[in-house]
Amino acid sequence: MSREPSLQRPPAAGSAASGQFVHAFGERTDGHAGMRETLGGKGANLAEMAAIGLPVPPGFTISTEVCGWYYGHDRQYPPGLAKAVGEAIASVEGQMGRKFGARSNPLLVAVRSGARESMPGMMDTILNLGLNDATVEGLAEVSANPAFAWDCYRRFVQMYGEVVMEVRARSEEEEDPFHRILVAEKRKAGVEHGGKLNVAQLRNLTRRFKALIRRRCGSEFPQDVNEQLWGAIGAVFGSWNNERAVLYRQQYRIPSAWGTAVNVQAMVFGNAGDDSATGVAFTRDPANGEEGIYGEYLVNAQGEDIVAGLCTPSPIREMAEAMPESFRELENVRQILEKHFRDMQDFEFTIESGRLFILQTRNGKRTGQAAVRIAVEMHRQGLMSRQAALLKIPAESVDSLLVPVFDPRALKAATMIGRGLPAGPGAAAGRVAFTAATAEMHARQGHKVILCRVETSPEDLKGMLVSQGILTCRGGVSSHAALVARQLGKVCVCGASEIRIDYERKLLFTGGQAIREGDYISIDGGTGIIYQGLVENTASEVQRVLDGNLEPQGSYAFELFDTVMSWADEFRAMQVRANADTPAMAAEAVRFGAEGIGLCRTEHMFFEGDRINFMRQMILAADAMQRKDALKKLLVFQRRDFAGLFRAMQGRPVTIRLLDPPLHEFLPQDDAVRRQLADKLEVTLDYVVERVKSLHEQNPMLGCRGCRLGILHPDITEMQTRAIFEAAAHVVKQGIACVPEIMIPLVGFRAELADQLRTVHRVAREVLARQKVEIDYLVGSMVEIPRAAVTANEIAEEADFFSFGTNDLTQTALGLSRDDMGLFFEEYRKKQIFDQNPFASLDQSGVGQLIEMAVDRGRCTKPGIKLGICGEHAGDAASIEFFQRQGLDYVSCSPPRVPVARLAAAQARLVAESPQPAAASTSTSSS
Amino acid sequence: MSREPSLQRPPAAGSAASGQFVHAFGERTDGHAGMRETLGGKGANLAEMAAIGLPVPPGFTISTEVCGWYYGHDRQYPPGLAKAVGEAIASVEGQMGRKFGARSNPLLVAVRSGARESMPGMMDTILNLGLNDATVEGLAEVSANPAFAWDCYRRFVQMYGEVVMEVRARSEEEEDPFHRILVAEKRKAGVEHGGKLNVAQLRNLTRRFKALIRRRCGSEFPQDVNEQLWGAIGAVFGSWNNERAVLYRQQYRIPSAWGTAVNVQAMVFGNAGDDSATGVAFTRDPANGEEGIYGEYLVNAQGEDIVAGLCTPSPIREMAEAMPESFRELENVRQILEKHFRDMQDFEFTIESGRLFILQTRNGKRTGQAAVRIAVEMHRQGLMSRQAALLKIPAESVDSLLVPVFDPRALKAATMIGRGLPAGPGAAAGRVAFTAATAEMHARQGHKVILCRVETSPEDLKGMLVSQGILTCRGGVSSHAALVARQLGKVCVCGASEIRIDYERKLLFTGGQAIREGDYISIDGGTGIIYQGLVENTASEVQRVLDGNLEPQGSYAFELFDTVMSWADEFRAMQVRANADTPAMAAEAVRFGAEGIGLCRTEHMFFEGDRINFMRQMILAADAMQRKDALKKLLVFQRRDFAGLFRAMQGRPVTIRLLDPPLHEFLPQDDAVRRQLADKLEVTLDYVVERVKSLHEQNPMLGCRGCRLGILHPDITEMQTRAIFEAAAHVVKQGIACVPEIMIPLVGFRAELADQLRTVHRVAREVLARQKVEIDYLVGSMVEIPRAAVTANEIAEEADFFSFGTNDLTQTALGLSRDDMGLFFEEYRKKQIFDQNPFASLDQSGVGQLIEMAVDRGRCTKPGIKLGICGEHAGDAASIEFFQRQGLDYVSCSPPRVPVARLAAAQARLVAESPQPAAASTSTSSS
Repeated sequence: MSREPSLQRPPAAGSAASGQFVHAFGERTDGHAGMRETLGGKGANLAEMAAIGLPVPPGFTISTEVCGWYYGHDRQYPPGLAKAVGEAIASVEGQMGRKFGARSNPLLVAVRSGARESMPGMMDTILNLGLNDATVEGLAEVSANPAFAWDCYRRFVQMYGEVVMEVRARSEEEEDPFHRILVAEKRKAGVEHGGKLNVAQLRNLTRRFKALIRRRCGSEFPQDVNEQLWGAIGAVFGSWNNERAVLYRQQYRIPSAWGTAVNVQAMVFGNAGDDSATGVAFTRDPANGEEGIYGEYLVNAQGEDIVAGLCTPSPIREMAEAMPESFRELENVRQILEKHFRDMQDFEFTIESGRLFILQTRNGKRTGQAAVRIAVEMHRQGLMSRQAALLKIPAESVDSLLVPVFDPRALKAATMIGRGLPAGPGAAAGRVAFTAATAEMHARQGHKVILCRVETSPEDLKGMLVSQGILTCRGGVSSHAALVARQLGKVCVCGASEIRIDYERKLLFTGGQAIREGDYISIDGGTGIIYQGLVENTASEVQRVLDGNLEPQGSYAFELFDTVMSWADEFRAMQVRANADTPAMAAEAVRFGAEGIGLCRTEHMFFEGDRINFMRQMILAADAMQRKDALKKLLVFQRRDFAGLFRAMQGRPVTIRLLDPPLHEFLPQDDAVRRQLADKLEVTLDYVVERVKSLHEQNPMLGCRGCRLGILHPDITEMQTRAIFEAAAHVVKQGIACVPEIMIPLVGFRAELADQLRTVHRVAREVLARQKVEIDYLVGSMVEIPRAAVTANEIAEEADFFSFGTNDLTQTALGLSRDDMGLFFEEYRKKQIFDQNPFASLDQSGVGQLIEMAVDRGRCTKPGIKLGICGEHAGDAASIEFFQRQGLDYVSCSPPRVPVARLAAAQARLVAESPQPAAASTSTSSS
Repeated sequence: MSREPSLQRPPAAGSAASGQFVHAFGERTDGHAGMRETLGGKGANLAEMAAIGLPVPPGFTISTEVCGWYYGHDRQYPPGLAKAVGEAIASVEGQMGRKFGARSNPLLVAVRSGARESMPGMMDTILNLGLNDATVEGLAEVSANPAFAWDCYRRFVQMYGEVVMEVRARSEEEEDPFHRILVAEKRKAGVEHGGKLNVAQLRNLTRRFKALIRRRCGSEFPQDVNEQLWGAIGAVFGSWNNERAVLYRQQYRIPSAWGTAVNVQAMVFGNAGDDSATGVAFTRDPANGEEGIYGEYLVNAQGEDIVAGLCTPSPIREMAEAMPESFRELENVRQILEKHFRDMQDFEFTIESGRLFILQTRNGKRTGQAAVRIAVEMHRQGLMSRQAALLKIPAESVDSLLVPVFDPRALKAATMIGRGLPAGPGAAAGRVAFTAATAEMHARQGHKVILCRVETSPEDLKGMLVSQGILTCRGGVSSHAALVARQLGKVCVCGASEIRIDYERKLLFTGGQAIREGDYISIDGGTGIIYQGLVENTASEVQRVLDGNLEPQGSYAFELFDTVMSWADEFRAMQVRANADTPAMAAEAVRFGAEGIGLCRTEHMFFEGDRINFMRQMILAADAMQRKDALKKLLVFQRRDFAGLFRAMQGRPVTIRLLDPPLHEFLPQDDAVRRQLADKLEVTLDYVVERVKSLHEQNPMLGCRGCRLGILHPDITEMQTRAIFEAAAHVVKQGIACVPEIMIPLVGFRAELADQLRTVHRVAREVLARQKVEIDYLVGSMVEIPRAAVTANEIAEEADFFSFGTNDLTQTALGLSRDDMGLFFEEYRKKQIFDQNPFASLDQSGVGQLIEMAVDRGRCTKPGIKLGICGEHAGDAASIEFFQRQGLDYVSCSPPRVPVARLAAAQARLVAESPQPAAASTSTSSS
């Protein structure tokens, strides 16, 4: 969540919307930080830095509007662009006193992408543009350093060849062709680093690179610097739709319509000698949030050397001794940046012959832990209000304070062997299993398991269930693996593309290592890092405090968590409840801050221990007597369960959903179990088989479930109602307040609700009269099928409250079974038919409209009707923002998601009441 | 459909809504025929007849509003009612010169129900009210006929005992207790009819009846005539909610909120001697529609004697000789009634000592055949306009002209053995089978079968499929049996309550007969009549003309049909298309008047003959080559099919839906077939089993089907598109016009449609370019999931047309699988949760709102977007009225439903453009 109210300014006159495609920065600057939409994040911040006098090399930004035009017009440019770019180049020439394409003192430029939201490394960059066979000599002269000039040239030829002319490895097996030549030349020269090659060797290398391009492209590496420039601009625009960029956008929900800007900026040289350097720095530690400059730098190098990881940079604090003057300047820049941008910054700098240049700045990505600390501390330093601080913390961050973590001492000794996308937070370690079957085998033997798959499919579910963590090589954070892992609360690292799994040989290759099935690995689903061997994990510090295993006084992490939660509780409007079915879950929910139970699934109570047998007896009963007996037994269990829940919630509201799943879910599928059951119930096996068959449904999701059960079997509704009120009476007599809210599932017709209401009210009256207590209670309706939404005005006549069951509402509104989506979900993701997984984040434009309709119509009939949501979307920040906009009274999620929901609810309220558009709210995602 | 524009008048001053609960008729009449809502049909028509001077015994009507009050206030009456009733009784006393409860010349009254829509025999009636131990003597004196007086009294005591005091048989086995006493007394007296008992015997009989009441009720038969009156009024109101009345309302979709009125009318006596009589008459023959009085009468009897069937009445035309004066009067009344009410009337009359009284009149129920003839002939007689005539014909009637009929000669010789509700029109004969298994066995042996069940359940489906007809003892016209029968186009008689089936002894009892399993019976699903033995059936006259087997010139039935159809075509606005998958079906559709194909289900083409093997090969293909081969083979078949369709439709639009069902539907479930398939495809059985398993879905309805298939397997979309355009090109080159409309199923997201559009347009371009022809075509979207409806504005950006798939839209909007509804449908029907089966008639208040939304939103984006509907609701009259209101361009139903749809579309247009409310449109249902 990033919002920079102080930087919001009216758009410049003649902005992109009115056809200004090029915006300069430098001596004359016509953009600012508020123009991200037009200039992209990088361009806007370069303009802002130039405007406040920070040392930025001059340049210009081609607006995102041009990108839209480019894709809308078969990759052509709008008329007038060429002229504007020519003029802007001339202006840069003037400021730098260098000429683009001139043999003497030539101007070189960097061409970089820059979208509204940072997409680090996803799109293309070209440096040293403007070099050719002539200007390289001019650069050699003006720098008096031919080796430097030729080093720049050979780098440029390679970069241009790869990025613009697409000379790359043609298969996964083939080595990168430029790299192959470089390695050969280095071997011939007997040096380890390319930087150590002499001028002749560099000339030769450049010649071989150009020959490679000629061979592969059938055309020459272009000597015309303007051709180079337009080639690079086209490549950057083109890279907006390369595969990894598309994938990244999907992961972070960046609309592809936004497009990227292109930044063209005068080159400055960190590789101009030993008084030159390049580096990247954060204004605070992005890993733990500690204040102070953090980063690394490399003397006599260009930025790409750091990014490519070819050389090992030094920690930035070493600059204090090595380049004290520059370090002081840098610390000054750090403070200016933070004060000005009011967020932790991630910036790049270059020192050319002792002179500091800032090449870009952006809000820094950070871990969840860092996000919390930075926000709280920046508020305490007076840099932002509590509201602003809350909005700086991605709601998900809070989760990372709660999931298990690797033991810090164990982690120090651990070897990182790879990295993927963080897809299910927490730390997990276990034996490598390549198949669900192996995972189950290891689990049966009592071992912890990490299921490692190229990608997962629905058949892997069993394996995922028994595993501590899931690791995949393919697929993003909304892939099947990621999705299911988060649903199951499993640690997950996905899309670890550098890992290769050989199912046949049962080997996993990473970083040159081969790991066998059965070996231990450890994965961190919060960072995406994969470690060799078993790294011990432990409950997080915050979790230990919540569990009562650590004193809160000593824990700074808990203090930060608690501060953020208390701020959130102050600003949020919606109540946060939890979905909990047992007293233990209810107690956990209260520890996490839940203010009630929004969904108790009574059927979960029927599976435990002996109960399933009575449930089966009830269903299979050959006569009314047997059935009544079974119901009586179940009544006893249910009453005890409900009393436990009421006690755990201590007067907080408890919403109990009456029996929902189809009855056949309770019956055994296995012949042996069926036979046992038949013996127990003194019926024939045939009878059991026949009964199971008669309850079979083509589409159980759309079958005899929800209130249809209660209508068909009023005695079940009666038993459950009796259990609720007897338990409530019991608890109330012990002096504990108790507010039961009874919820009728799957209502589509007003008459369905009315039918169940009659039974509920009758039984409630009976029990309360007999027990001689008075208890307030509500009876409401789930809204989980479209008909309920469109007839909400009718249903509201009967209902005290609505609870949106967004899982089922999504399934019915989209005609889409979550269980069966696996067959085509991947294809839908690839083809961008879903913006997001509609079961993870609410489909606002489809399902959302039905909810809006139900809210409006329900309120029209009954203005004060209580409205909540108990689907899984209640724990998703984007969905919570939607629910806030609808003015719901509460959201109810699983207990561990309660803190996330509390924060997200506060943010949603703040966004709703802020005068600004909400679009920028995802700008800082945790990495 | 009944509309009486000429009778519509402003409500009387001081009408029920302003608290006038009692309306008189007679010398002073303050109601009229336009007040059905307040007075009920009977009361309104009594008032109307009194007003125009027809001889109606005086009386009054207690309004339906009182019924609403009665049920809303715990069966109490509104204040003021007692006084108003007292005054009204006094007025009747004055007009009749008799006193209610007076010993001398006592006034007797009849108390009858009367709802807005006629519900014959469903509610209670009490005659001769006002008799007690004293007044019976007065009646004896004034009539000088003690036997008549005592006969009236014993009848009244029995009727009152049964209806008000609920003295009835206490179980199905027990004989009716009054009847038992009567039989005993008759036996003792040695007479056959109760009317032959002498005064002493009648006194004794009455005494025993009163003793029975005392024994069973613990209280006396009331002697106070006012107590009698209020008891009767309460019983009539109470009978509004008796079981058969509730059932009837469900069948005919009469809202239970309407309530009944109560008519209290002076008694006149058809049993006052041999110059007295009673009868019922129709103004035209209700069976075939022929003009002229039709009915029966009974000398010296009360109306109930005819209704009870205890005596055999004479055909009314015999009155011309027996009572010529009265007959002339009656003929005069007949003409007045028809001219005045402008519809065929069903009226009751009594002749008391030579004086004719009309006791009630109502629009007469009639067969479909009669409805058509009466409407056309009444128009020709100048009694109504063509529009009014069309509205008089229930759309379903047309169907009864088309279904098979019993051979008239065979029917003459046939013995009727029972009657049920007409639930699936047509005539069928076959061997009795009591179980699905027996039905299948008979069918395998080549016999025709009538499946006879107490009621059917989903397990009976197999049996229903192989049967000619279905007969049930329980359940109404929307019971499972009726529903499925109509879906399957099977003849069905349901709810034949007088029939008893003994499954154990394999016997069916009816009318004293026992029929064995395997015996022949015949059933008429248009009349509900059951015949003994095999009655030959034949194509109807109209059908034979349509099939070209009979010259149209000689057929009056065809002339009537053709007239109605041509009127309908003139007045309707919506196009009527047919759902047809083969050239033969297309040709049939054209014969029935279809103007295009609205739905060709391409998957039906894949099941035929060899094709299924290629389909399976395509699905199971181990490699791309095998798959491509299979698709090539399928292409050839599809191309031929489409060419055939285009030829059959001769330039009419043909809407082709791309592949829709989940692929697993094409794969064999049977192990032996799987093994054969594996051998044929040269793969292992394991591979086939595995593949089938991998395609298995939890909820196939919500799974990988519709456009999801085409998106996952673009080669299928490509093959189908290629087949369509190659066929179109081929046909166009033969000089036949051709307008393909390609329909993408199950679209929920605009991007889904866009994806499929790209393929369709690309292939179309390719084929048309290669074939060098130009063909106009449309590509549209099914709207069959709620998300498509709410985002119709987005989808309309891509779609040339929408076709509403109301079957699936109902399933998803209601979260209700049609296949699985059987488990609870009966219960829902009983509890009146469904007004109607939502799969038979559109759920207008739920699904209808989604359709309305889609229509509005689609037109908002694309004002001229073509809109149609291709679900089964397209053949349902009530749904068609809804579609007309939405202004759809066409409906598309199964070919045999096309005539019904043409008529219903015309009626819908006329209703939509009429200034009157549509509520009265169901007033004449075919019996």
